[in-house]
Amino acid sequence: MSFDLQAYLLRQTAAVDRALNRFLPPAGAKPATIHRAMRYSIFAGGKRIRPALCLAGAEACGGRLEDALPLACAVECIHTYSLIHDDLPAMDDDDLRRGKPTNHKVFGEGIAILAGDALLTGAFAIAVQCKGWPRYNHRDIILELARAAGSTQLIAGQVADLEGEGKKIPASHLRYIHERKTSALLCCAVRLGGMSANCPPGQLQALTDFGYNVGLAFQIIDDILDVTQTSEQLGKTAGKDTAAAKATYPSIVGMKESRRIAARLTGRAFRALRIFKNRAPALEALAEFLLKRDK
Amino acid sequence: MSFDLQAYLLRQTAAVDRALNRFLPPAGAKPATIHRAMRYSIFAGGKRIRPALCLAGAEACGGRLEDALPLACAVECIHTYSLIHDDLPAMDDDDLRRGKPTNHKVFGEGIAILAGDALLTGAFAIAVQCKGWPRYNHRDIILELARAAGSTQLIAGQVADLEGEGKKIPASHLRYIHERKTSALLCCAVRLGGMSANCPPGQLQALTDFGYNVGLAFQIIDDILDVTQTSEQLGKTAGKDTAAAKATYPSIVGMKESRRIAARLTGRAFRALRIFKNRAPALEALAEFLLKRDK
Repeated sequence: MSFDLQAYLLRQTAAVDRALNRFLPPAGAKPATIHRAMRYSIFAGGKRIRPALCLAGAEACGGRLEDALPLACAVECIHTYSLIHDDLPAMDDDDLRRGKPTNHKVFGEGIAILAGDALLTGAFAIAVQCKGWPRYNHRDIILELARAAGSTQLIAGQVADLEGEGKKIPASHLRYIHERKTSALLCCAVRLGGMSANCPPGQLQALTDFGYNVGLAFQIIDDILDVTQTSEQLGKTAGKDTAAAKATYPSIVGMKESRRIAARLTGRAFRALRIFKNRAPALEALAEFLLKRDK
Repeated sequence: MSFDLQAYLLRQTAAVDRALNRFLPPAGAKPATIHRAMRYSIFAGGKRIRPALCLAGAEACGGRLEDALPLACAVECIHTYSLIHDDLPAMDDDDLRRGKPTNHKVFGEGIAILAGDALLTGAFAIAVQCKGWPRYNHRDIILELARAAGSTQLIAGQVADLEGEGKKIPASHLRYIHERKTSALLCCAVRLGGMSANCPPGQLQALTDFGYNVGLAFQIIDDILDVTQTSEQLGKTAGKDTAAAKATYPSIVGMKESRRIAARLTGRAFRALRIFKNRAPALEALAEFLLKRDK
């Protein structure tokens, strides 16, 4: 493949980091603790997968980077808030994230809860920094974001995950969890990219199919890496799904079948991109990268 | 005063409850736990002060109830989320709220955190159910809400409150906390009411002055009641500010001076309403009620 994904990711990540730095209150804003805590997790070296997918979605539909940036940043704020809250002792109780101590380990539980709340709240303020388009106005944008992050999607996934711990669950229920915990927000990121380009309904549907399948594959691969990699390789606690007696694809359908399913979903994601002809090289490269990654 | 506030509050509360019931996912929506937890706190018998202020603000500006309802409900969702999170063991660690066990006492800490997150997220989806107006579009509405609830206002108040525990703080810093913890969202509620009526800038400024002063008076009276009333009378743990060594108006400036300040702020709130002539009887009655309440 001639597309240079590494260079592309470096460029997009730099643009996203600059924009996040601009959109978030400065580190010195009062009260300093909360703004330091928000920035600690936002700038903890995340892979910026969701923003990259959002920007690449916009590009595939002929949109401009600057029009998609507020939406890419809003999605990353929501992703980061969900990690901070998921890591809390009352949830997954994790000490390590992206190779660093988790937010509550550094700032304490109270501030970590509030930093998550503040990033979630801020995400909506950042999202409406986009200009709005004939097909997708600010109301559509907010509904898209709130739905993906809300009680029937992202939060539903975390609830089902909490409630499923230590239980034997069927593969269909695990899929329900993964669709909500991971696929919903990834899919939302790509769709918002398309919406920022005022894309026609057919393209939005293609982005939806792409995002859904990539998101599900992404989480299955996360399950696989949790078993096969060390904490050092992952930058977060490895083997924690097994330790928490969490259902994962490898534990339910086996490692070989898990890899097969991930590859099949990635195939579907690629096929969804056909509508863009050769105008979606970044989305293709991202999907390939996400399937083959080792952390 | 000829205005029948009790009848008015009953009517408005019923309208708000019906609207909240319509806007929130049904109790049976999957996963059932999270939707039960959200509804448990939303329908726990709160006084609906903020929605009432929002609707009364709309009325003062000649607006219609149905136009203000989504905003009144959005503010109540944000208020309820903030109570759920404030009551958590990592924060104020409270067992009783509105005369019932707090959310985490019933559903556990993990679900309580997520129920708060879901109400906060849902608030933005509910807010954009309003139709938008020439002077105030959906972007303005979201920014208004996100600012009041965000890291420099509502959340800043809770952070400063947490960090101030057990410390001697000057009255000016206590005012900073109260402005953020209480005044910001109350003021936002009244302003959103005016915005839903497409009010001119002069009226919005009057509502801002009114909301700011009523909000600050409201919190000072809360401080006073925490000392003078029993848990049974309040429906929440009385004396907890003293127990947590929290600074309050009575503990810093004394009971008599606290009452004097609350009365002065309420006077300012009344004067702000002059611009409405006699078209704001509900706002006047609410301000009077909030000053004289005993719970």
